[in-house]
Amino acid sequence: MRYFIDELHKHVGQKVELKGWVFNSRGSKKIKFLILRDGTGYCQCTFFKGECDETSFENFSEDISQETSVKVVGTVKEEPRAPGGYELSAESFEVISKSVDYPITPKEHGIDFLMNHRHLWLRSKKQHAVLRVRSEIVKAIRDFFDGRGFINTDAPIFTPSACEGTSNLFGTKYFDTEAYLSQSGQLYMEATAAAHGKVYCFGPTFRAEKSKTRRHLIEFWMVEPEVAFNDLYDNMDLAEQFVEYIVQRTIKNKAEELKVLERDLSKLEPIKGSFPRLHYEEAVEIIKKENPEFVDGDDFGGGDETIISSQFDKPVIVHHFPTAIKAFYFKEEPKDSKYSLSCDMLATEGYGEIIGGGQREESIDVLKTKIKEHDLKEEDFQWYLDLRRYGSFPHSGFGLGIERTVGWICGTSHVRETIPFPRLYGRNYP
Amino acid sequence: MRYFIDELHKHVGQKVELKGWVFNSRGSKKIKFLILRDGTGYCQCTFFKGECDETSFENFSEDISQETSVKVVGTVKEEPRAPGGYELSAESFEVISKSVDYPITPKEHGIDFLMNHRHLWLRSKKQHAVLRVRSEIVKAIRDFFDGRGFINTDAPIFTPSACEGTSNLFGTKYFDTEAYLSQSGQLYMEATAAAHGKVYCFGPTFRAEKSKTRRHLIEFWMVEPEVAFNDLYDNMDLAEQFVEYIVQRTIKNKAEELKVLERDLSKLEPIKGSFPRLHYEEAVEIIKKENPEFVDGDDFGGGDETIISSQFDKPVIVHHFPTAIKAFYFKEEPKDSKYSLSCDMLATEGYGEIIGGGQREESIDVLKTKIKEHDLKEEDFQWYLDLRRYGSFPHSGFGLGIERTVGWICGTSHVRETIPFPRLYGRNYP
Repeated sequence: MRYFIDELHKHVGQKVELKGWVFNSRGSKKIKFLILRDGTGYCQCTFFKGECDETSFENFSEDISQETSVKVVGTVKEEPRAPGGYELSAESFEVISKSVDYPITPKEHGIDFLMNHRHLWLRSKKQHAVLRVRSEIVKAIRDFFDGRGFINTDAPIFTPSACEGTSNLFGTKYFDTEAYLSQSGQLYMEATAAAHGKVYCFGPTFRAEKSKTRRHLIEFWMVEPEVAFNDLYDNMDLAEQFVEYIVQRTIKNKAEELKVLERDLSKLEPIKGSFPRLHYEEAVEIIKKENPEFVDGDDFGGGDETIISSQFDKPVIVHHFPTAIKAFYFKEEPKDSKYSLSCDMLATEGYGEIIGGGQREESIDVLKTKIKEHDLKEEDFQWYLDLRRYGSFPHSGFGLGIERTVGWICGTSHVRETIPFPRLYGRNYP
Repeated sequence: MRYFIDELHKHVGQKVELKGWVFNSRGSKKIKFLILRDGTGYCQCTFFKGECDETSFENFSEDISQETSVKVVGTVKEEPRAPGGYELSAESFEVISKSVDYPITPKEHGIDFLMNHRHLWLRSKKQHAVLRVRSEIVKAIRDFFDGRGFINTDAPIFTPSACEGTSNLFGTKYFDTEAYLSQSGQLYMEATAAAHGKVYCFGPTFRAEKSKTRRHLIEFWMVEPEVAFNDLYDNMDLAEQFVEYIVQRTIKNKAEELKVLERDLSKLEPIKGSFPRLHYEEAVEIIKKENPEFVDGDDFGGGDETIISSQFDKPVIVHHFPTAIKAFYFKEEPKDSKYSLSCDMLATEGYGEIIGGGQREESIDVLKTKIKEHDLKEEDFQWYLDLRRYGSFPHSGFGLGIERTVGWICGTSHVRETIPFPRLYGRNYP
């Protein structure tokens, strides 16, 4: 039987064997401590001279260095002072494999060094906590949609045409033709929404952006729900309930990890109920007070987003962005075509945009005009236009970027720590 | 408030508005029937002359063609004879958008025609059922691992080097260098297993194979668990429990869909408990009885897999494949280096291999020799070798292909119907 540290509470008083890696060790002539990590948690193993195997005690300091893999046998005891609340009263240990000169030590390392050793850096306490939070967020996202009757219909990564221009796209030879790596599954979700009503896709997306900001990754994960017959306002309601669910569930289920990350929970707890909603022009007014050079009609920069979000203790939804700065598929506001039925959600504390979405154009004639206006080729969109030819329907959806959401909830300033193996401009290793 | 067909049982006796598409309609002078689909289910709407809105009744046949999007208002009634058990006693309907000459009719269509219209074909009853089963299987996979303390640590799609040769790889320009699209996240999961103990990745993978078989896709989804300190036998136990869980849960939760697909459940029900396990040489003996030309030491072809699986009513695990036909990272059997600590699982009824995996080599020296023997460059594997330098550990894992699993459980002969937008040799549209 395998025993894991996170299940020791079930085995108090029992003799167990743990396998893992040395996180830390110290000792005197009479007692030695080893903090073992097995991935599920950290466990203090206590070796008393005379009570444990003699060889184990003698060889302790010599054999054990950081990240050595070991097997420890001992009895589980409740110990409120130990990390996790339980410790092992150890009988013996056995080295499985040594670790000499482990490169990541408790001292400070530069970010390039850490990123080059990402495969090992992942074992560090903070990185460990971030990825556990990420895993919980992924699960929360899926549970939210699955629990509401959404069907997971994944979009393809290979796409035949460059729907929004080739500038930020990765291309590849696809046998005798060229294919592009998807930047969004949305257009495909519009097709599956007509088949399943409520759908989402959840996968990696790719943007070949030559930018090095703390909010950008070359390869990032996105979840994109789409709902048939939802309008812009239904879409904002859905986004709001969704983000509340993710945040509140993560606070509840990953309290220990958020503590390791020293996250100020008082900033996350208020994220429930309805969120403030601003028309684009209302948002512009707020921005202009602090950034008078902002040009009405432009898209927001990272700084502008921070100006808006700093006004509220909940995420803010900005809607009705100018039609001119939005993609061809957005529906225009019927009362004023200058504005689109779009909405973005900005996270609190300046963590920036985490959601972008809106209502899609359902008229085939308007869509054809838009495709032309955006210098796109109508022939590339025949299948997409079919969705308007055969029982067209109002529909809305949005995309939420996973890494930004993880960064926000963890309080991590740079998205590079929110994904196991980040791909950045200039980095594709390890 | 939005009403969905799959929740009508909660609203018996209430007046509701449904939005969806016309699946079917028929009628006489006194009564008209419309089968509405909204993605969550199918609902019979009954219009009695004199009891419903007069215009609705008069315009019924003229306005309503297959896939027209409509709004229907009526009262929910229990009706055991209706599909789903409930029907709408309709007051009125309203056309949202017409559908003229919908290309997919109840008559037979060729497969190329259907694949070119995949964005519409998805709406058909059988395709609808397959993707609902797929969504359930995805959820079951995640629930299985999440419920057992595994952490979801996704592997990158962009990889810097071609770990197992470039022949079946898609390459892309990654700024100033070349990147390849991942064929497997396994090597990365070995790194995250050292951080989290029990991990899995679940994402799309890519193989540029110029083959047109019913089992191959260019782009397919794979889930890959990896467990620190698990050996080959632990790995087979895990694979067994995992497949039982997926199959039994899908039978239970997607009974209606499997009925639509006319799946013979008596073939799936026995898939529980331990599965037969065959050493490679035992499997070879079985194959040779029916295929005397099979060469001992070779890998199995699709036909050979069918010979084996036809002997059993449960999936079969074949283990200890010859070292010579396996990738460099497989650990050799300590008692006989001719064989590797590998295992594949073959589905029942000739659906072929659904799982491949095994125990990984943990000795850095053996691994370096293997890398050389496989004509790979050691420099490409520095980070991977680090996992053996610093606290190396026995570990095992496997990969399960989603589309083959969906095809098997649905009883669908070709994997192209098991993913929303299949990518095949010669196909990257829609």
